[in-house]
Amino acid sequence: MTARALLDTHLRIKPYIHNTPVLTSTLLNEIAETELYFKCENFQKMGAFKMRGATNAILQLTDAQKEKGVVTHSSGNFAQALSLAAKQLGVKAYIVMPSTAPQVKKDGVKTYGGEIIECPPTQQDREATALAIQKEKGATFLHPYNMKNVILGQGTAAMELLEDHPNLDYIFAPVGGGGLIAGTALAASHFSKGCEVVGTEPFEVDDAYRALQSGKLETNPTTNTIADGLKMALGDQTFPIIQQHVSKIIRVTEAEIIEAMRLIWERMKIIIEPSCAVPFAGLLKEKSTYANKKIGIILTGGNVDLTNLPF
Amino acid sequence: MTARALLDTHLRIKPYIHNTPVLTSTLLNEIAETELYFKCENFQKMGAFKMRGATNAILQLTDAQKEKGVVTHSSGNFAQALSLAAKQLGVKAYIVMPSTAPQVKKDGVKTYGGEIIECPPTQQDREATALAIQKEKGATFLHPYNMKNVILGQGTAAMELLEDHPNLDYIFAPVGGGGLIAGTALAASHFSKGCEVVGTEPFEVDDAYRALQSGKLETNPTTNTIADGLKMALGDQTFPIIQQHVSKIIRVTEAEIIEAMRLIWERMKIIIEPSCAVPFAGLLKEKSTYANKKIGIILTGGNVDLTNLPF
Repeated sequence: MTARALLDTHLRIKPYIHNTPVLTSTLLNEIAETELYFKCENFQKMGAFKMRGATNAILQLTDAQKEKGVVTHSSGNFAQALSLAAKQLGVKAYIVMPSTAPQVKKDGVKTYGGEIIECPPTQQDREATALAIQKEKGATFLHPYNMKNVILGQGTAAMELLEDHPNLDYIFAPVGGGGLIAGTALAASHFSKGCEVVGTEPFEVDDAYRALQSGKLETNPTTNTIADGLKMALGDQTFPIIQQHVSKIIRVTEAEIIEAMRLIWERMKIIIEPSCAVPFAGLLKEKSTYANKKIGIILTGGNVDLTNLPF
Repeated sequence: MTARALLDTHLRIKPYIHNTPVLTSTLLNEIAETELYFKCENFQKMGAFKMRGATNAILQLTDAQKEKGVVTHSSGNFAQALSLAAKQLGVKAYIVMPSTAPQVKKDGVKTYGGEIIECPPTQQDREATALAIQKEKGATFLHPYNMKNVILGQGTAAMELLEDHPNLDYIFAPVGGGGLIAGTALAASHFSKGCEVVGTEPFEVDDAYRALQSGKLETNPTTNTIADGLKMALGDQTFPIIQQHVSKIIRVTEAEIIEAMRLIWERMKIIIEPSCAVPFAGLLKEKSTYANKKIGIILTGGNVDLTNLPF
């Protein structure tokens, strides 16, 4: 995907998203012994970067497709992002969710105007139900991460970060399905002078780490991590980009994630979800490698259940 | 206190404080049916506006005074603010704290370089211990709010807010000892075209509300509020300014404070302490009065114990 494609994507989605602020913290710089620039996608519309990819994917549909709506299966931020992006663009969104999804997630989707279709809580049922909606309604299926237009959309966060801070040595991002880090890596390859992208992942769902070693897609037999946004495995669209552009993935423990999350809450006074504490946790873990560098960190989202915090 | 005094204060303290950002939220505007501008003093150095008054008070001392240090008695944000402000200015800070103060507050003062002197947990002991330090060390006593130079310092938050948004119809602020709202009212009277300042206070510590009615200082027989920054009663320096410039004080329940706090956390993804949810709670309570107005709200601080949240 070319620089042109990214630039066009940014122009296309700009009216519908926030150019989120980049925050700094003297205290966290001291702790990390480096210079940190936090791209605050927790302040993005609906509270996460997923708004970018969802908006871009819908905007790339034909008018005929837009008329028939979009469908996805997700119980996380992409469900809400697609709902809100669709609403902003006057498009109908069908969201397939497992019947077991927490009420708070269902409420989120409803708030943003998505229509929920419940299904039994297996991957097979989710896919079958989404397929049925495609057939019945003629809606277009949009994947949460394994899609070119979604990857391009997610890449615009790093573009904005590099626009504000062109001299970053590294950008740290979390790795789940790989949409964000693939987009970030593309943006860094086109719009920086040698800024490297470092992936970070919980040990509990380290398929990307293993995939980079084995050279093929890997799965996560279990997904026991607090970083609920990172449970998905890489897809065949995201993996090749990561293989080409991301040289390193740092893995962190659950305790390291919680400690990093707490530091950001306490010192920066902002609310981030566990998934986006992972990059800062990875940086702290390999502090000496990155001492005195300029580091961008993408804080991916702020949708967290305040009644169920890990501290 | 004149416009000149405020302008001089701002120039004096500028190098030592953050000009904090003003945030907006479409969702909260919809809920409040008005246009809100949040002045984020939770992002101020050490996490609260008290940094402004403490810095100004120290900067106004003579060199001889500075050499002998400053002393206060406080177990809240002013203790930490004075510690950090003193450290930044190369001045010694003695902080008298009740022996029963939570370890986290003591740690905060130590982190910022203040020297803690413990005393028995009564108001009398606090005052006696502070007086002893003044005598023994020659240190200058600085009051957390009932002092001209502290009031002027706190007023700079509203000055910055009005600089960014000159057309505000109202500024909402919480009332504790009255330093912030007195400074805010002075700033609005000098630097706005008719912007009114509205005070907000928990029912549980509503001495300012009663004082405005009775025309004399009132006390709070109990202080059972979650808004721990608002437990102090007005002082003889702050009260006359409030009498002159603040026409209205809205009182809120504990449940209303917690609900407003939760809305700001969830929707804005920022961490605020209970005390600074009070103005937003007051606004929601009298929503119809302020519909479609431009309202500034001072978010006073973000120092909250994450292990002891009300939701």
